[in-house]
Amino acid sequence: MDDINLSSSRRAFLRGSVALAGATAAGGAAASQPDPLITELQDWASITGEGVDETPYGLPIEFESDVIRRNVPWLTADPISSINFTPIHALDGTITPQGCAFERHHSGAIELRKEDYRLMINGLVDTPLVFTYEDIERFPRENHVYFCECAANTGMEWAGAQLNGVQFTHGMIHNMEYTGVPLRLLLKEAGLDRAGDLSDKWVYVEGADASSNGRSIPMEKALDDVIVAFKANGEALRKEHGYPVRLVVPGWEGNMWVKWLRRIEVTDMAVESREETSKYTDVLEDGTARKWTWVMDAKSVITSPSPQSPIPHGPGPLVISGLAWSGHGKITRVDVSKDGGMNWETARLGKQGDSKALTRFYLDTEWDGEEMLLQARAMDETGYVQPTKDALREVRGENSVYHNNCIQTWFVNKDGEAENVEVS
Amino acid sequence: MDDINLSSSRRAFLRGSVALAGATAAGGAAASQPDPLITELQDWASITGEGVDETPYGLPIEFESDVIRRNVPWLTADPISSINFTPIHALDGTITPQGCAFERHHSGAIELRKEDYRLMINGLVDTPLVFTYEDIERFPRENHVYFCECAANTGMEWAGAQLNGVQFTHGMIHNMEYTGVPLRLLLKEAGLDRAGDLSDKWVYVEGADASSNGRSIPMEKALDDVIVAFKANGEALRKEHGYPVRLVVPGWEGNMWVKWLRRIEVTDMAVESREETSKYTDVLEDGTARKWTWVMDAKSVITSPSPQSPIPHGPGPLVISGLAWSGHGKITRVDVSKDGGMNWETARLGKQGDSKALTRFYLDTEWDGEEMLLQARAMDETGYVQPTKDALREVRGENSVYHNNCIQTWFVNKDGEAENVEVS
Repeated sequence: MDDINLSSSRRAFLRGSVALAGATAAGGAAASQPDPLITELQDWASITGEGVDETPYGLPIEFESDVIRRNVPWLTADPISSINFTPIHALDGTITPQGCAFERHHSGAIELRKEDYRLMINGLVDTPLVFTYEDIERFPRENHVYFCECAANTGMEWAGAQLNGVQFTHGMIHNMEYTGVPLRLLLKEAGLDRAGDLSDKWVYVEGADASSNGRSIPMEKALDDVIVAFKANGEALRKEHGYPVRLVVPGWEGNMWVKWLRRIEVTDMAVESREETSKYTDVLEDGTARKWTWVMDAKSVITSPSPQSPIPHGPGPLVISGLAWSGHGKITRVDVSKDGGMNWETARLGKQGDSKALTRFYLDTEWDGEEMLLQARAMDETGYVQPTKDALREVRGENSVYHNNCIQTWFVNKDGEAENVEVS
Repeated sequence: MDDINLSSSRRAFLRGSVALAGATAAGGAAASQPDPLITELQDWASITGEGVDETPYGLPIEFESDVIRRNVPWLTADPISSINFTPIHALDGTITPQGCAFERHHSGAIELRKEDYRLMINGLVDTPLVFTYEDIERFPRENHVYFCECAANTGMEWAGAQLNGVQFTHGMIHNMEYTGVPLRLLLKEAGLDRAGDLSDKWVYVEGADASSNGRSIPMEKALDDVIVAFKANGEALRKEHGYPVRLVVPGWEGNMWVKWLRRIEVTDMAVESREETSKYTDVLEDGTARKWTWVMDAKSVITSPSPQSPIPHGPGPLVISGLAWSGHGKITRVDVSKDGGMNWETARLGKQGDSKALTRFYLDTEWDGEEMLLQARAMDETGYVQPTKDALREVRGENSVYHNNCIQTWFVNKDGEAENVEVS
């Protein structure tokens, strides 16, 4: 860019701009004086930019190349069983773009064409059925924004402040607009008369990948808000998100949102598969395990400032921002503390979204330039209040991995840098 | 994939599946018998899939490679002044992924670093200011889903049914969750006392690209819901969407949503720039032009079936789906006709979203396999009803290009193929 010869009139205008800014530095509380060097760089206004015909699917600009999903290599034994964390430290609003949305896979992401796709519904149904992709598209569809959170999100933090970045402590979550067919419509197509009393029946759902990732879901939930989804944020599911069809189980742990959905069996008892016995149960202090902990309780976290998103400026106006969510419904309030939980201020919530979806919160505040112990605390429409880590450990001990929804603390130093810490 | 040797037990299971489907073909209204050949292809369940560590930013699966923005080469003189149309025929729900979202550029997409970014507010303000990107991030933010529609969307159709694809007739639109600072907060930071009575004042907004694309906006709108936005669907704006900062002017024509926003001048009259005189005005039958036609009136279109999205199955259950929107507020009702406007059925609206945002509608119907003349007709909260093309021509003549919000007709033949046609 440096070899572009700026016209003299252009230079004159830019010099004018700098002078203007100089004259106003005292007046603008949050506006700063531009660097005069910028006059050497503004070739973008005197030449034409790039046509975008050659980028049929637009990618983020090169300057944002660090805003990507990342994994933690030591967390799983092999990359074919891995986790991609959403870069929530760098996002705002509530929607997660599918390209950087959290996903977990147990035996790799498989490639399954729509033409080859089949969904079987069998077991205690009047007429076992096999649906093609086209068949599913012929049923009435719904659209809902829902969060999908891994039960293991924040799991490493039981043992202390371990991972220095909100992407890694809380990034096993995404929030997308899912489009699909309510599962109850497909179950009714197969007929549930044979199942008799539905109050004690289950569905067992499994994927087409080698892990199959089978899970049991009570019929009551299956007939409520579960969706057989084929789009996320308007477009087809990415391969790693279960193309062409995945299950959406609103408010419940992500492991149940079976990808590459292959089979739904109506049963009279839970299957008690690997994924709901040896995994995805919470081991308590006495060695016994909590069973059937499906719902993701209310939780929140400050995404900025955070270890990957330090304060880039000095004292004065500061926007503290974060996310809150509850598997039980809507978020009604989020409080923020700057002193590790001694004093709380109520944050401003972004617009009320769907139930069981991410809510963005902001605290528009003044930073005095001193150290802070930042915390956020969410409340949902059931009256539930997000607990401290101490309170959670008191009930659940320290053996747990899953369902850690405790209050997170960031220590912010005078330079605006943040660190993952634990306070008692 | 064909060289994978399926185990005999796997083959046995799959053959079982086919037999099951055969037994149920009569029972399932919308489920069909799978092709036995599929047994040769299902290697995905016996081997592990791909780890996704090597795709830091996830792209659509290869099978969806035709779901991309496209342009119409003859529409503009040069690719640096071009339009990318959203593939709305292939999308569902309401959110447009940024990677395939409509955008129009007048002198190419420029590359502007956050560090180099400056926004000047000058003119009739108490203190002219220059903001850096960081400065803007220190003001309170809001999140809203809004549609952005080019005034020229559907413009080629004034002269008849010209473009055979809803992507091209109606794809100059996108719908994203925008995050940014209300413009009124930045204007107040500069101070508006000097401007005096605000009811007759304007802001003139321009971009940092060579075209500058300057537009005049009445102060009333500037102080209402206009946003200085830096994120779309949670992440940074793509380069072609105005990285790092663009203007969002809810409900008003896309040309006013200035990208690479550089300057906002408070003025006592409209500038009457090229973009609001020789362009973006509507020439009437008598040669005079309508002035200040900012709001995008209520409009709707059926996205499926449509010329690029034929009905892939025979008679029986059919989901007719489309989009509706209004720059005046919320969509309250959409009707669908199968006979070119003689009879209408009220469609089911997807969940009520934000005002001035896309609303998805569905008509869950039975197709008798006969020809159809499909139309959709939107109504908004002001009581406005989307007009026919004849009604619009009666008022506006046939010289217009911009603000064509008339009812669109697709002819669907017995094979389910659709064609862009005109009915009177």
